[in-house]
This record gives sequence, structure tokens and C-alpha cells, in this order.
Amino acid sequence: MQPVMTIDELHRFLDTDFPQIHTGGRVFSVSTIQPGSVSMRFDPNERHLRPGGTVSGPALFTLADVTAYAAVLAHIGPVALAVTTSLNINFLRLPKLRPTTCTCKILKLGKRLAVIEASIFQENGEELIAHATATYSIPPREM
Amino acid sequence: MQPVMTIDELHRFLDTDFPQIHTGGRVFSVSTIQPGSVSMRFDPNERHLRPGGTVSGPALFTLADVTAYAAVLAHIGPVALAVTTSLNINFLRLPKLRPTTCTCKILKLGKRLAVIEASIFQENGEELIAHATATYSIPPREM
Amino acid sequence: MQPVMTIDELHRFLDTDFPQIHTGGRVFSVSTIQPGSVSMRFDPNERHLRPGGTVSGPALFTLADVTAYAAVLAHIGPVALAVTTSLNINFLRLPKLRPTTCTCKILKLGKRLAVIEASIFQENGEELIAHATATYSIPPREM
Amino acid sequence: MQPVMTIDELHRFLDTDFPQIHTGGRVFSVSTIQPGSVSMRFDPNERHLRPGGTVSGPALFTLADVTAYAAVLAHIGPVALAVTTSLNINFLRLPKLRPTTCTCKILKLGKRLAVIEASIFQENGEELIAHATATYSIPPREM
Repeated sequence: MQPVMTIDELHRFLDTDFPQIHTGGRVFSVSTIQPGSVSMRFDPNERHLRPGGTVSGPALFTLADVTAYAAVLAHIGPVALAVTTSLNINFLRLPKLRPTTCTCKILKLGKRLAVIEASIFQENGEELIAHATATYSIPPREM
Repeated sequence: MQPVMTIDELHRFLDTDFPQIHTGGRVFSVSTIQPGSVSMRFDPNERHLRPGGTVSGPALFTLADVTAYAAVLAHIGPVALAVTTSLNINFLRLPKLRPTTCTCKILKLGKRLAVIEASIFQENGEELIAHATATYSIPPREM
Repeated sequence: MQPVMTIDELHRFLDTDFPQIHTGGRVFSVSTIQPGSVSMRFDPNERHLRPGGTVSGPALFTLADVTAYAAVLAHIGPVALAVTTSLNINFLRLPKLRPTTCTCKILKLGKRLAVIEASIFQENGEELIAHATATYSIPPREM
Repeated sequence: MQPVMTIDELHRFLDTDFPQIHTGGRVFSVSTIQPGSVSMRFDPNERHLRPGGTVSGPALFTLADVTAYAAVLAHIGPVALAVTTSLNINFLRLPKLRPTTCTCKILKLGKRLAVIEASIFQENGEELIAHATATYSIPPREM
């Protein structure tokens, strides 16, 4: 399973396709692309917090969804119009206002469906904050 | 299963606890509270759109999470510090830039866990756009 | 959304396609087929119990999966080779050794994917025991 | 996170607590226990098959649930009365009538909830057949 996009190409695609993730400032960036996986970095700020100083669930959902989507595109190319069909997320520990990493692993890349596992970490990868599994529908590809 | 909060009380609580849902303008409001269920209305705008003019997945996740949370609080009161522990969402149809309703039904309200079903509709309730199941951890309550 | 199979036809199909659900005695039977939904009855016996006298999780999973599958087939016909792609189940209350009903509602019946909601009840439909959401992949249909 | 049970102790507990997994012959056995994880081996036979010769979804669900449960018990001890509260499973590839391994990793072992990731493999770990995430409710423990 070989990636077909570079970090720069993914950034350009996300800027066009997910501009709303940059609302209020750039907080998401692709950090690595490897065969079968993509990692993104998320730098939360005040607008992602809930009372008590923890990062909100919707912010983590967005991180998981964007990274999983990036992992699919990195392996099938930006022309495809993939759509999230389902996402299951478990919130494991209260996330702090700290740099956060999401690593997505492709469990299956079929002709019609891709299934991705997302692990969200803080503290240099030592604290698993949330874990998600997402499914994407892939449009028919030209031969 | 009787509600213990009014729509006004829920609005005040959400303003304090989920201020970020109002970033960029007020788009979420509680429309009904009934025994065992709460509905909210979501008026998406440009910043919730993806290319193609469909409302983004994270916007629907936020709607499901906030409404399910409101349903729990409406029945246990605003003092509780409930936390989302998991959320499973299925995206069923592409949502348009239209008024959107989320109706949450409490499937279980236990001492430690609440399980909520969320149905997201458009077109006056005729188009089911997304469906979610969420679990909330409820902190120990005083006697 | 109109059903295209009768209860007898569904029974014959399940006998062939899911013979293992009858291992140790017939405990599953279709009770109703309606536009967009199918209900099955499950009569658990000793071999479905865990210590404490509650019906096991795998038995409820099987009930949800078989009923959801029956709901899909009832609406697309028995020729199709649908496959479960994912199933999310919440166990809500401890199930007793009593007649159990699973009602499945079709949330979406697309060309490629069907999404089904399953509610498992006891006590004449008054106790919700478990709730599931399942996705089925539908093979390309002939025109 | 240190295990507190041996393979023999787990086998004895499962024989008592999950006798129905041995109905029709012993097909499940614990193969490894490590800090934070447990693996089980499943040797499917004719009664686990669906037409087409693939192992049924309920058989894989049972494998994931039993292994995840074993992983929790191996780390908290057999006295606890843990209960599955939810399980989300993705079926990725059609499983054949071959030796099958389920490896469960503890994502979180809290006071009240444990969250486990289950990966089901065939072909000596090279084919990922299914992937699940399960949540268990842990009863209050004595001090």
C-alpha cells in the first residue's frame, strides 16, 4: 500500500476541501505520510476548550475525521470524492491544552469502502486520549 | 422519566458550558423538551459547508453531541458533570444548507451511564440525514 | 419502501443461509414484515445463558444481525449476497430467560449500503434490552 | 499494567463463566497474556460457517467479546463481574475455515470502564479479518 500524495499536496487539498478546519487560525497540519498511515498534528487553542480546560469532543472528532480522510486520499489520490459513512469514537482521557497527534492506520482499502483506525495522543505519544474507527465510501474509479 | 430543566435553563447552561458552539454566530437552539427526549434546531451557514455545498460531518457530530448532552442534563440537572465516553455516527444522506433538527431519545439513564439515540433530519423531518448513538458517563450523585 | 418477500420465504432463506442459528433447536422466527421494517422473535434457552441467568451478549448480537439481515433481504430479495460490514451494539439492561423481540428499521437502503437500526425488547416491548446499528454491503444489482 | 492471572486460571474461569463457547467442541483457547494484552486462538469448524464457506459474523463477534473480556479479567482478577456495555465491530475480509487469532489491547482500564481494541487475524497474522472496540463496565472494587 503505497502513498501517492506528498505532505504539500495533502495540505493544498485540505485547504480547498476542508477550509473550515482553518476557521479562527491554522491548527491542523500533516506531519507524516507512510505506507498505510498518515499522522496529523493539532495545536488546540482557547476556542477548542470546554469549562475545566479540556479540549472538546467535537474538536477531537474533527481531528480524527480529517486525518482519516487524509489517510484515504494520500493512498488513492485527490481526485476521488470519498465520503465519511460512519465514525465510532471512544473518549479515553481528558485532553489538555497541549499539542495533540492523530495517527491513522488503514485497516482496509477496498474498491468501495476504506476502514481507518485513528489513535489520538498527547504528551509525546504517551497518553492515548481518544480512539476512533471510521469508514469512507470510495466512488467508482476509472480504469 | 421526567425532565427537570426548562428550555431557558438549558440555553443558559449551554451558553456557559459549550460557548464554542456559538463561535461565529448562534446556530443551535433547543426546540422541545419532553419526557425522555430533547430536540434541537441547527441553522447551518457557509462556515459549516464542504465543497459541493453539503454540511460537514464535524458540524453534524457537534449537533448530535450537544443535543444528546442536553437530553441527559435536562433529565439529571445542570449540576452534573457528564462526559461523552463514546459516540457512533452513521452519515446517511448528504445534508444541504437547510434548517436541520436533531431529536435525541434516552435509551437508558442509569446511575453511571446514559445511552442516547440521536436522529438528524432535514426537510421538516422527512429526510433522515444522520443517526448516532452516544454514551455519557454520569458522575456519582449526592443523596 | 415495499417488502418483496413473505415470512415463509424469509424462513426458507434463513434455513439455507443461516442454518447455524438453528443449532440446538429452533429459537429464531420472523414475526412481522412491514414497509421498512422486520421483527423477529427469539426464545432463548439454557445454552444462551451466562452465570447469573442472563442471556449472553453473543446471543443478542446474533439476534440483531439475523434480524437486520432479514430486513435487508425482505426489501431487496433473496438473490442478493449482502454482507455485514459493521455492527455497533449497546447492551442496556440484563436480559432474562424470556421471549425476546428484535425490531429492525431500515434507516437507509442505498445502491451499495444499507443501514439498519435494531431494538431488542423483553416484557412485551416494555424493556429495551439492547440497541444496535448495522451496515450491510449490497452487491451490484442487475438492471 | 500487569496481568494478575495465568493462562490456566483464565481457562478455568472461562469454562465456568462462558461454558456456551464450548458448545459443540472446544474451539477457543488463550494463547498469550502480556502486560496490557491477551490473545486467543479460535479453530472454527463446520458449524461456524455460512454458505460460501466463510466464518459467520456472530462467531467473530463471540471471539472478540470473549478475548476482550479475558483481557479485562487477566488484569483485574476473576472476582470482578464485568459486563460488556458496547461493542463496535468492522468486518474487513471474508474469513476462511482456518486457524484464527484475536489479539486484544487494553486502551483504558479505569475504575468504572475498560476500553479494549480487538484485532482478528488469519494466515499467521498477515490478514486482518475484523477489528472491534469494546467497552466493559467494571463493578466497584473493594479497597
